[in-house]
This record gives sequence, C-alpha cells and structure tokens, in this order.
Amino acid sequence: MASTIRLVFFGTGGSWPSPERNVMSIGLQVDSDVLLFDCGEGTQRQMMLTNMSFMKIKKIFITHYHGDHFLGLAGLVQTMALNDRKDPLEIYGPSGTVDILTKYLSIGYYSLTFPIKLYEIEGGEILDFGDYTISTLRTLHPVPSLAYCFKEKDIPRIDKKKADQYRLDSKILEKLRKEGAIVHNGKTIRIEDVMGGIRRGRKIVYSGDTAPFSEMEKFAEDADILIHEATVESSLEDKANQYGHSSARQAALIAKKAKVRELLLVHISPRYKNANLLEKEAKQIFPNTKVVKDLQEIIVRVRKNQSSE
Amino acid sequence: MASTIRLVFFGTGGSWPSPERNVMSIGLQVDSDVLLFDCGEGTQRQMMLTNMSFMKIKKIFITHYHGDHFLGLAGLVQTMALNDRKDPLEIYGPSGTVDILTKYLSIGYYSLTFPIKLYEIEGGEILDFGDYTISTLRTLHPVPSLAYCFKEKDIPRIDKKKADQYRLDSKILEKLRKEGAIVHNGKTIRIEDVMGGIRRGRKIVYSGDTAPFSEMEKFAEDADILIHEATVESSLEDKANQYGHSSARQAALIAKKAKVRELLLVHISPRYKNANLLEKEAKQIFPNTKVVKDLQEIIVRVRKNQSSE
Repeated sequence: MASTIRLVFFGTGGSWPSPERNVMSIGLQVDSDVLLFDCGEGTQRQMMLTNMSFMKIKKIFITHYHGDHFLGLAGLVQTMALNDRKDPLEIYGPSGTVDILTKYLSIGYYSLTFPIKLYEIEGGEILDFGDYTISTLRTLHPVPSLAYCFKEKDIPRIDKKKADQYRLDSKILEKLRKEGAIVHNGKTIRIEDVMGGIRRGRKIVYSGDTAPFSEMEKFAEDADILIHEATVESSLEDKANQYGHSSARQAALIAKKAKVRELLLVHISPRYKNANLLEKEAKQIFPNTKVVKDLQEIIVRVRKNQSSE
Repeated sequence: MASTIRLVFFGTGGSWPSPERNVMSIGLQVDSDVLLFDCGEGTQRQMMLTNMSFMKIKKIFITHYHGDHFLGLAGLVQTMALNDRKDPLEIYGPSGTVDILTKYLSIGYYSLTFPIKLYEIEGGEILDFGDYTISTLRTLHPVPSLAYCFKEKDIPRIDKKKADQYRLDSKILEKLRKEGAIVHNGKTIRIEDVMGGIRRGRKIVYSGDTAPFSEMEKFAEDADILIHEATVESSLEDKANQYGHSSARQAALIAKKAKVRELLLVHISPRYKNANLLEKEAKQIFPNTKVVKDLQEIIVRVRKNQSSE
C-alpha cells in the first residue's frame, strides 16, 4: 500500500498578504508526519482552518528570509510551546539560518517546552529521511534562497505470480520488501526473486522564490507536481526577473521542459484579485496548470504508469 | 464639530489565534490618524479586511512582549516599506522596548524606507500629543506590561447667545477656540467671554493583559469605553489571576467601580468557540458589556451629558 501524500496550501500569495491570499506556506503530509515548506505570517491560523494539525509538524523547510516566507515561525513555535509540545522540531533553511533563527526565536517572553534543531543548507545536498529524501537547489534570488524537492523512495513492486510460487502471504511480503531478504520454510528468498519492477516514488518540487533558470528544469525533471512561483503576468516579467521572480508563463516553460505531470502556481502578487490571466498564460504553454488557492488540498496519487517498469 | 473617533478590533483573542479570533490588535482612528494598540501576528491582513488603512498608522502602542501582542509588527513594518512609506512611525512600549524591537525589526532581509522611533515607557507617564493624551499604567502581569488611556482634550463649548453678541461667525469662533483670544473689530475677545462650559473629551482605556487590581479602577474612572481583557469564565479565575489574567466577571467589577459608560471584553481564550458565558457573567455585574468580535467597528460618540457642565 502506498502512503497517503497530501498537500495543503496555507498561503499562496507573494510579497505581502491580501484579503484573497495569505503569504507563503505549504504543508505536505506523508502518513502522519507533516512537513511545512515556508511559514509566512499567519500560517498557524491558516492551518487551524484546515484538517492538517500544526502540532504534527516534524520538519520545517524555509526557502529564504524575506518576511513573506518565515515571519509566522515565532508565533507557530510559541503556540506549540503553549500547547506543551515535547517532540523535537527540525528547521532547515539556507545559509544564515542558524544566526537568523537563533536571534528571531529568542525574542519576547516565552518558555520553550521542546528542542528546536536548526540545520543550514548550502544547496545541492540530498537529505535522507528514510522513506523519502529532500534535495535542495540554490535559486536565482537576491538573498540565499533554496528550492526543495521531496522524493518518496522507489519501492520494489511484487510480482504476484512469482510470490505465489514461494507461497508468501502479504505480511511476509512486506517483511521481505523491508529487509531485502528473508528465510522462509528453510529457503533464502531475496527481493529480486519475487520482484516485477519498481513503483517509482512520488516527486514534488517547490521552487521558492526565483527568476527562471535552467537548473530548475533538471531539478524538477519528471516531477509529479512542480509548485512554482508565478509572481506576475508575462508583460511584467522583465522587471520581475530583475528582482529574482518569475512570471506564470516562465514557470510553465520550466514545467514543459522538465516534463512534470502537473504545475501548481503560487506566490501570486497581491496586485491580482484573481489570477485568471496568470493561469491562462501558463496553460497556453503547459495545459496541466492550476493557480492554487489558499486552504486548497491536493492528494498526490501514485502515477499509473509509474507502477511498473 | 467633534472629531470622529472610531475603534476597529483586528484581533480579540488571547494566547494564540483560533478560527474564531485573531490575536490582539485594536485600531483607534481620530480624524485621519490611526493609532494601533498591540499588533499580534496577522494584524496587517486583518486590517486589509476593514476600511482602516495600515498605511495611515502614526503610532503603535504595545502593551507587552508576549507573542500574541506584538508578533505582527515585523510583517506590518515590512509591508509598509514595500509600499514605500516615507512618514516616520512611532512605537511605544514598556521597558525592554528599545532592546527587543531593535533586535526584532532587524531580522531577515528588507530595506526600511521610513524612520522608526522607539519609545520606552515605565508606566505612570502622560504623553501629550496635542489634541489628545495617552497615559499609561503598569499592570499586574508576569512581564513588564502597560495599560493605555486615550483621552481627547476637553474643548471649550461656545455659548451661541454670547457669541452672537460679538457677531462672531463659525470660522472666527474656531480661531478663538484654538488661540484662546483674538482681536475682532478692534476689540480683544477672550474664549472665556463666549464660553458656555466644556465639552469633555472622550476617554478610552485598554487594559492590556492583567490580573484585576484597584489601580485600574482609578485609571479607567468615568471612561467612555473600557476595553478590558477577559481571558476566562469565573470558575477559572483563580488560575487566570495567577498567570496575570482576569475573568469577564472581574473585568465587569472594575467597570462598575470605575463607573465607565461601556465595557468591551477582549483577549478571549481560544478555548471558547463563542463567548456567551463570559458576556453573561459580566452583564450580571455590569449590564452595558459586550464581548467584541474580530473586525467589529465602534464609533465613539460624544456623551450627551458631557456636552455641557
């Protein structure tokens, strides 16, 4: 059984909040663990409007230290403490993270009830968390800034006919899948003996803030979902690029070249009451595009043609 | 003509936000100037849902440095800068303000486009801002914490009959009211010559966070509006008092002793989905009580029996 992976968008706006969109924050739940990507001001309250619990956050990944991406951290951490959290919280971010967050999270009066572990990332690392990895890419933005890639690990797919030859029930098969080899009825059986290919793990990429650049195409290659910033419409893209941002059109070009399955646009400028124009411009290049709304939930399903080699 | 004074409640919840209430922040508009009392996380976005402009804020008064009262400051200041504010911003708060806010407002990457002036207050001061004063009181809370009193200055009331004797039109009367004395048709006329009493200035008190204490009764004496914290119901007041908070019942006792005109309850604990019980308990002691809702607006009218001596 594949894990349930779902995304909830707590904020989809860029630069500052608007009545329509809060600033950036995205939750990714894999089984019962919640990973949070960015934590703009107001994220804790947005989470309370959904069924993804802020108390279940295990790791937070900050793309960079512009206010619209991290100024909800202090409030979130303090509310966790007031609710007597004991579990450690890991926070990852680009260079500067330890200095900035040590200072930021010490401001005002409160008592922390749990340990916070800060990790600083240069870009290019692959962090292995067991069932999944998080890889990172330095983006084109005026301050140290990262894109993140969540990649569920590939899982050997069992060929039922082969398994039946060894008379392995589902419990024993799960053990075999985990351990790679077992002894069954006195015989050593290796995973290869019953395998019928690979179920490819799901891949979700979040660009953070960035001007368009070719490394992103490789980073997002073949992703199930590319969540890309799309601050403005195409007529404003030159200026946006100078400030380290992309247009919806440019995000779509990257999605197309990276051959992703679906493109979700976020970090919409507060100038847009609705983002119809942005979605339209992107769809002309990459049809499977959506501008995400605040509080929207998306279940990330296993790709059918990913289920076997 | 009396100035328009209105209050807008951007957040009325205590400790942490809930779907029903954001954390503390109250706007007071007097003519076109906006004063902000407390600035919990998410205040800027709450303001955007009302017709009180965050760009018009002249002064911010922070009661204390628990997160639910100030963690919206950085985002607000950064959004003002991104919107190219030039006017200076004054921020007042209890002891610790200069250290805490200098550190807090320097975190992350942004460029300030306007000067911020920080003022530290011990409690007991009266700040004179021309048409009104702000006086302060140290409250009963575990960290340095203030209550604030906005007091419009008393204005000489013109006796129409007396003014008619001197043939003074409204423009000249306004000049006389401002300057105290004028020369008109070769004659010196003093304000006393045309006065028929005093229009008493409106008085609005905000308690901030506090356990109940008798100094608050004096501080709030005869106020038009007392905005008092009411974290819990009466059955929980002992524990609340230990943490430096009040029950709705205790807030009502203060309103009654202080003989205020109206009591507005705020800083409602997130445990309450609705605050009916709190309002009911307070009304039994002080009938003219309301538990305020987020985004509620209240026009502060001149008291009829305040219009003359």
